Amino acid sequence: MAYVDRGFNSGGGRISPTSAEFARAGIQNDCTLRPARHPQHSVLFYEGDKAERVYELDEGVVMLFKLLPDGRRQVVEILNAGSVFGLSAGEVYDCSAESLTPVKVSTLDRNSLETSPSLQRHVTRCLLSQLETLHDHAVLLGRKSAMERVSTFLMRLVPNRGGFGCVGPTEEAGEDSRSVTLHMTRQEIADYLGLTIETVSRVISEMKRKGLICIDRQDQIRIVNICRVCQMTGMH
Amino acid sequence: MAYVDRGFNSGGGRISPTSAEFARAGIQNDCTLRPARHPQHSVLFYEGDKAERVYELDEGVVMLFKLLPDGRRQVVEILNAGSVFGLSAGEVYDCSAESLTPVKVSTLDRNSLETSPSLQRHVTRCLLSQLETLHDHAVLLGRKSAMERVSTFLMRLVPNRGGFGCVGPTEEAGEDSRSVTLHMTRQEIADYLGLTIETVSRVISEMKRKGLICIDRQDQIRIVNICRVCQMTGMH
Repeated sequence: MAYVDRGFNSGGGRISPTSAEFARAGIQNDCTLRPARHPQHSVLFYEGDKAERVYELDEGVVMLFKLLPDGRRQVVEILNAGSVFGLSAGEVYDCSAESLTPVKVSTLDRNSLETSPSLQRHVTRCLLSQLETLHDHAVLLGRKSAMERVSTFLMRLVPNRGGFGCVGPTEEAGEDSRSVTLHMTRQEIADYLGLTIETVSRVISEMKRKGLICIDRQDQIRIVNICRVCQMTGMH
Repeated sequence: MAYVDRGFNSGGGRISPTSAEFARAGIQNDCTLRPARHPQHSVLFYEGDKAERVYELDEGVVMLFKLLPDGRRQVVEILNAGSVFGLSAGEVYDCSAESLTPVKVSTLDRNSLETSPSLQRHVTRCLLSQLETLHDHAVLLGRKSAMERVSTFLMRLVPNRGGFGCVGPTEEAGEDSRSVTLHMTRQEIADYLGLTIETVSRVISEMKRKGLICIDRQDQIRIVNICRVCQMTGMH
């Protein structure tokens, strides 16, 4: 039996902060925590804006991206619930943040963070998780083929499969499929994977032709055999 | 007048932690800080080793890299003095660390970190700096041409030039050159920039032919006109 998963499992299941922890730590020390809801495709901040607020994603999916002056775009991170973002080493945000789904985010004044050791610890854990995901993404962008990139992208949408923590097929013999929601257009996927939109479409068509995936809707793909797609990620 | 710079200025001069601060914070709370010297090309840890120690680089240059099972390598970070590394979200290191020069590193048991708020703050600042450098590197790997990648790499070796903090040429008119030490072989540069060694060599030859650089030694390049190389990074 296939089931629909709507969460984006970045970093192969490594991320495990709880938003409740962030809220607890924040509320105990400071009352500037403000949960807010934003519709899909809301820009939460732009690259270069003054970095006054830190965000935690309570629900939904957010992408962080950077633009080159001539308009080329690179999506640098895809964040799911529990992620902290908007922290900056300098005075301004180093990238822009846009919601890929309707989102619920909590915001905190940057200064509050400095005064709470428990919040510091939570943020450090989140940053480490993001750092490891960025290392994996550098390998993808620098060394993987187009087919490996798209396969890796699809596998990141399947929780508990692929990588060290893989539990293997849990369904009865002969059935190892999963329906995943992309939350991203072909252009956004291309900008995340360092490819052109034509290459993304070509690879998806090729995977469909080989019987590896079915396209249920434009943004929903059924992975017919998870292990076979996993074997195409370059990690085997 | 050109001068020789031997430091690797990762992240456009954003990083500004002091190793003294790390030492102070560590020593005040725990006496497990152990400075040690290692020669060039020492592996400090391998991907998959148990992540028991956190490192701070006091002197020298370290690269972090990941390997795919078939041997393809991606250098994911180049770290210079002041950087903290070896922190892991999980039980094991997610990448390997190798010295590119003779290095001096301080090590700290991972548990000590949890108990020191000042060390936490210092580590958070370092992680944020690394996160921003990784965002920039994702743009390089995902969207930049070979010429733009090599130019960006060279400009990162020139402190205070390029990007928001650029002070412009400081020498008298007509002279804006700088000699930089690469600390890396052509293969290591290729593995950092997501290129083949042939492409790196071709681009360096092309830059030499155009009069943008002179090759003083295999690992030392003189940038003849910094602004001209800067204009080829894709950031203008």
